[in-house]
Formats: sequence, C-alpha cells, structure tokens
Amino acid sequence: MTVLSKYLSIRRQKDSVLCVGLDPASPFMRKGEQAVPADYFKTASELEGLLSFCLDIIEKTGKYAVAFKLNAQYALPFSLAEYKRITSAIRKQNAIAILDIKLGDIGSSNEACFYWASQAGFDAVTFSPFAGNIVEAARQARERNLGLFVLTLMSNPEAGTFMRSILATGKPAYLWIAEELAKNGIEGAVVGATNTTALELKQIRDAVGKDVIFLVPGIGAQGGDAERIFGHGGENLLINVGRSILTAPNPRQAAEDFAFNFRGMMHARK
Amino acid sequence: MTVLSKYLSIRRQKDSVLCVGLDPASPFMRKGEQAVPADYFKTASELEGLLSFCLDIIEKTGKYAVAFKLNAQYALPFSLAEYKRITSAIRKQNAIAILDIKLGDIGSSNEACFYWASQAGFDAVTFSPFAGNIVEAARQARERNLGLFVLTLMSNPEAGTFMRSILATGKPAYLWIAEELAKNGIEGAVVGATNTTALELKQIRDAVGKDVIFLVPGIGAQGGDAERIFGHGGENLLINVGRSILTAPNPRQAAEDFAFNFRGMMHARK
Repeated sequence: MTVLSKYLSIRRQKDSVLCVGLDPASPFMRKGEQAVPADYFKTASELEGLLSFCLDIIEKTGKYAVAFKLNAQYALPFSLAEYKRITSAIRKQNAIAILDIKLGDIGSSNEACFYWASQAGFDAVTFSPFAGNIVEAARQARERNLGLFVLTLMSNPEAGTFMRSILATGKPAYLWIAEELAKNGIEGAVVGATNTTALELKQIRDAVGKDVIFLVPGIGAQGGDAERIFGHGGENLLINVGRSILTAPNPRQAAEDFAFNFRGMMHARK
Repeated sequence: MTVLSKYLSIRRQKDSVLCVGLDPASPFMRKGEQAVPADYFKTASELEGLLSFCLDIIEKTGKYAVAFKLNAQYALPFSLAEYKRITSAIRKQNAIAILDIKLGDIGSSNEACFYWASQAGFDAVTFSPFAGNIVEAARQARERNLGLFVLTLMSNPEAGTFMRSILATGKPAYLWIAEELAKNGIEGAVVGATNTTALELKQIRDAVGKDVIFLVPGIGAQGGDAERIFGHGGENLLINVGRSILTAPNPRQAAEDFAFNFRGMMHARK
C-alpha cells in the first residue's frame, strides 16, 4: 500500500489533515516549557522518559492524526527497538509513521537509511536533495516499500538561499525539485508554511500535480499561514504541528482543536 | 581542545592524514563483499555483529588513523550506549571521532543533534547547509564543544546541481559556503575527491584560509585523485577511506598502506 493511498484512506476516516510532530526535547538539553515535562523522568532514565512521552502523545492524539512525524535528531539516542515501539504505537492508532531525517547522502549510505527505516517500521522518510541522487533515492525507497517526502521549500527564513536559487537550467531550485518529484513518482513534498508565498505554493502544486502530498511544517498558533496553505496548496495536505501540541497543557485537546480548525479550512475551500 | 588542535597534534604524532570511514553495512541489507563478513553474526545478533565489527576495525587501524568517521545512516539502529562504546574505542586509539550525519534541519532540531552527539562522545559532526542556518549551527556546535565539517563540494557526480549552482550573490554555492565557514570560525569542510577540479580545490582553500581541515571522501584505489588533493588542497587534509579498508582481507594492512601512500604524497608536496 503506498503512502498516498494510506493517506487518502485515513484522511477520509478521520476527516483530518493533521500530522503530529514528535520532537521529544530532553529537559537535560533544553530547560523550560519547550522540553518534555520533568514528571517523565522521576522514576525513569532520560531515554525511557523520552520514549514514554512519545508513546503517550501518540496514544492521546492518535484519534485526530493522519500521521506522526518523528524527528530523527531528537530520536538519535533511540535504538532500533525503541523506533519499533514508536512505529507500532503509531500503527495501532491507524496513522502513517514518517521518519523526519532529511536524508541527503551518497547512494550507498542512503540505502542504509532506507533499510533501517523499513526495519523500524516507518512508512516514509524525509529526503534532502542537496547531494542530488533523487532518481536513485526514489528507486531505493520504492524497493523498501517506503514513501519519500522531499524538501522542496522549507519554512525557516534562510532556506531560500539554496531553495530559491536559480539553477543552471534557469529555474528556481524549488521548481526543479518539484519537477524531479513528479518525474520519479515520488509521493511527498515538504513545503514550509511560514515564508512560502501563495505564488510559490501554486507553482509547486502545478509542477508536482494534484496527488503529491504536501507535508507542511511551520504552523503553530498562526491561522493566517494555514489559510494560505489551504487556499493555494491543493487538496493533498498534511499539516504538521509539533510544539503547540507537545507542550500544550492538554495535548489531546490541542490536537482535537488543530484538527477541527484545519477541517474547517479544508471544507471551506471546496 | 578544538578539533583543529587535536588534528594537528595527532597528525604530528602518527605522521598520517588517514580518516577511516566506518560504514558497517549489514549483510541482511547488502549481500556480498561490500557487507560486514558473515562471521560476525554466527553467535551475535545483527546489531551486536555490526558493533563488534566497528570496534574491531577501530582496534586494528587505530595506529594509522587520525580520525574515524561513523556514517549515521549505517548507525541508525545503534542506541546512545553503542555510540558511546564506539567513541570510547576511538578515543583509546588517540583519534578524532566524527559523526557523519549531514545534519541540515531548522535550528531547534539541529540543537538536538548537537546535544546527543556530544553526549555520545563525538568530537565533530558533518553539516549540510541546504537549510541555511550556518551561523546558528556554528554557535550551537561551539556551545557543545563540537567541531563542524560542512558539506562544501561533495564527491558524487550529482552533487554539482546545488553545490556548483550560482547563488543570488553571483557566486558558485561552494564558494559561498567556503566563505561562510571562514566567517563563522568553522574548522572543517567536506570536499570530495572524485569530481572536484584542481581549480575548485584552490578556490575553496583560498576562501577558507590555510587552517580549515578538508575532510576528503571518495578516495579508494585511485591514486590520481589523491595526488590532485595533495597538490591543490593545502596542508590540513583528512583523507577518508571507507570500503577499501573495511572490506580488505586485512584491514590493518590496508590502513597501513593507505597511511603510507598519503604520507609520501604529503611529504613530496613540501
């Protein structure tokens, strides 16, 4: 089953386009409200506490989430066994498991990532096209039954240096990437919400075709950004919310609220 | 102690510029000669076998290696505990431990990688500038006492699409990256051997200054590439050899041979 068909089926069942971003920040790394609550570490080690937090969030928000996106940088200390526990919990909630690793290496190393991501039970990984290798990565991922979400235009302000640069073909990089996705049957594009203009959204959507799923990070409290995405990003959207759910007093309620708001914008558009 | 001062001190002691690339490919992923020998899995699990292989290679080649570069894609199933065992073994051999993760995320996620890489005992990580964030990453890495090796011009053929593109400043991307390194006190650049011309090597060296360490992947059996690097890449070189050592019948001998050949080219140049 492809990521696209899973996405369409789960979106229909849950009437949601919410992706919950799992960024479990250790309180030993980052103090304060942006970290996993101290309660998780009272009787557990740092790693056990972080794992419990992820499993809790999945259980609490699963009803509203089409997908979960685990950021590999936060998950660096987890072994294969912990990855498997996370993807099993996600599967139990009938959601898609995405490893957000921004993979961008030479072919043989990319192959290792796809092998382990597949062993760990993920449905898809994020991919950075900086090193090229898009054609090869599309084939490698397909062989492991994994979907790809390719960084096309990220949400942070500096992302434009490369992603908006004009390549030798005379095209902005994000458009070249979008066309490569379409040519290689890749099902997902990462398109940031914060700085992407309505025109850019439209250009990317036109280049990839209507089916490709836009995985959209960068949305928190700001409704404006979300409205631009829903207005110009096409139908197949997966709106990622991380900290605004993870650090909410009640993550379940926060996920329900985000799913509800996105649902309103999704239906208003039609 | 900075990575540069460690590098200079170990290079002097071992009279070597060899970096051994740890790319432990599971035989369950990749059949044949390019994978870790089957012997490692006779009485051990897949993960235990891969870890033992890494520790063996470190022990056998440590005398000749200034650094070891562990590719994070092959190491994906390892937990913090296994990373620590690897970096301890590297330290015991008086060598630098580099996590080759090609990190390229938004600032808060990069922070998580630096935190865990530091907890795991690495001296440096590789960094992809695709998402921008070079200034922030330089500061974050410094705060964790980690060095950075920034992808400047990689060795695979397709890398040129982005790394040789002309940015809005009118400069080729690799030169812009090189200048950003210099401005931000970053100590390392990843500069591939296979397709980088003598002119490009010279341009990058001029832009970063004489101290920055070139971490050079892509060298195997081909002496020609190595000669170009030694001829035009400046003095501070770290020549990475992966498979040609890992899959050699006698890895210790292979490491000694590579170190000897590089030493000859290093001294011939002076």
